[in-house]
Amino acid sequence: MTDVNQRNLKNALTDYLPLPADTEPHLKAALEEVLGNPGSLVRPEIVEKMFSAYTLPDENATQLGIALEYFHTASLLFDDLPCMDDAQERRGEPCIHVQFGEAHAILAALALINKAYALTWRAIAGCVGTGCAQTSSSQTGSGPDRQQAAIAYLEHYLGVGGLLNGQSMDLNFASLPHDHQTTERVALAKTVSLIRLTLVLPGILGGASPAELQLLERVALCWGLSYQIVDDLKDVLHSPTESGKTGSRDASLGRPNIALVVGVPNAVQRLTRLIHIGDRMLARVVRLRPGVAFLQQLCTQLNAEADEIIASACNHSVRGAA
Amino acid sequence: MTDVNQRNLKNALTDYLPLPADTEPHLKAALEEVLGNPGSLVRPEIVEKMFSAYTLPDENATQLGIALEYFHTASLLFDDLPCMDDAQERRGEPCIHVQFGEAHAILAALALINKAYALTWRAIAGCVGTGCAQTSSSQTGSGPDRQQAAIAYLEHYLGVGGLLNGQSMDLNFASLPHDHQTTERVALAKTVSLIRLTLVLPGILGGASPAELQLLERVALCWGLSYQIVDDLKDVLHSPTESGKTGSRDASLGRPNIALVVGVPNAVQRLTRLIHIGDRMLARVVRLRPGVAFLQQLCTQLNAEADEIIASACNHSVRGAA
Repeated sequence: MTDVNQRNLKNALTDYLPLPADTEPHLKAALEEVLGNPGSLVRPEIVEKMFSAYTLPDENATQLGIALEYFHTASLLFDDLPCMDDAQERRGEPCIHVQFGEAHAILAALALINKAYALTWRAIAGCVGTGCAQTSSSQTGSGPDRQQAAIAYLEHYLGVGGLLNGQSMDLNFASLPHDHQTTERVALAKTVSLIRLTLVLPGILGGASPAELQLLERVALCWGLSYQIVDDLKDVLHSPTESGKTGSRDASLGRPNIALVVGVPNAVQRLTRLIHIGDRMLARVVRLRPGVAFLQQLCTQLNAEADEIIASACNHSVRGAA
Repeated sequence: MTDVNQRNLKNALTDYLPLPADTEPHLKAALEEVLGNPGSLVRPEIVEKMFSAYTLPDENATQLGIALEYFHTASLLFDDLPCMDDAQERRGEPCIHVQFGEAHAILAALALINKAYALTWRAIAGCVGTGCAQTSSSQTGSGPDRQQAAIAYLEHYLGVGGLLNGQSMDLNFASLPHDHQTTERVALAKTVSLIRLTLVLPGILGGASPAELQLLERVALCWGLSYQIVDDLKDVLHSPTESGKTGSRDASLGRPNIALVVGVPNAVQRLTRLIHIGDRMLARVVRLRPGVAFLQQLCTQLNAEADEIIASACNHSVRGAA
């Protein structure tokens, strides 16, 4: 991402949620802290480029991108609470509930969610009558149809069919079967949902064909599951323990981790396979829609991170065998 | 409300939030408990009758009514948390966080909110091209204009300009001036916001004239503030204490209470005044839109409750003077 674009997105992050002068000072301070210390903003960046690939309006791209960033940030505020992951730090700072108390962390998260729905709504309404598929024979549905489909998609993946169920399964993993299927179900609901929204919603709004949408779905799935396996492997291979050896935070918290469930070599094998499938699916989408070729560069970065952890896993098993 | 209508609304409350078979059991149980033990459902009842007054579609009325009930219920789940009001009981049962843990109470509330936005969206989209004002000269804006106005109205009163700011002021009342203005600001944001949405959103969607919308706003304001004063008076006059005398829970929690701030007689005076203004405004709306006359019956019930507490306050002051 260019510095200018990064700055524009950072500005949008605060500009889209103006705080009235009479906002209660504790809530105001919590929200200013959240908005002033953003993450990588990779979601809005992808949404902007996807919108461009489908010739959807720039203004609506920023609205939807920032909305997804707000949903993501709100989910982190909730995840970090004492009753969930009981985290202490996030993005190099004490968590919002540590700095401002749990009530203000919750109210700040709800403010982000409220604004995110309003922005999504405006973005979706703004896209009606636009999109390259307006002049293409491959278009799916009319403007209002796409609008309805986009709303249903968002509702599903943020709700009990997606993110919320994922978080609940994550918290209750101790009561679920500790197998490969269950860890992937959690990752699908918790990790893949927001990636789906980032990649697939622009396609729905742009009138992508069913085949194209299915490919975007599969890319999101492969990326999300790969990302989760990389995270799980890092947890198992790199977590420092007091003894100086590595240890797993997931194991101590009883959280799902595919490397713990199927072993490091099988997790690496699954990761390699997902990367290959993801690359193949992505190449097929790019053939249908050359404007999404930017995803291949992004994928190269993700794959480099995966390669690093795979190398680390191999060293680990060689050391283990020695 | 008729028994049939009450039953239909209770069914809609569960039917609109179907829980997929693979919903995590703890989250499922929490949501089933929330949906199976509803409140009075007065909000969806009012929305249905308001929609009828504006000849808006019945189906969309139920969607919006249930959505407002979900928002209201979610706000109760959050308010009851240990970090907010630390309540133990709600609707005659242990609170959801007491029964299922804080994390599941939060996830259940978020599931209600997610569904509520989706339902609101569908209701608003469904109203485009309908409403009696389509054929009236007093109509305000076109279909898409009304849709945008309704979305902005909802966003404002649920967000940092409304409900969330009210909750934060409520929690932080100790740090705010303990005066009449501040207690009303809290009530305006916290109590009036959802009443506004219930009364004014149907008017916006139905194309009510600016004068009509302003009257509906004022009715909502008078009702909300009156309701809050009745609640505050009950707290001061009726809360039992261990000594057998009455005592205030708001005082012990440091929460805003107009009767504590301006005294019982001044609070009663303000209540009487608000009831009079509300009745006058309502009579004027009914002249413009005879279909909303049902609100006068509802108002009679609310006023009866107010009369009871006013009588109790008079007894109290007579006893105090004796």
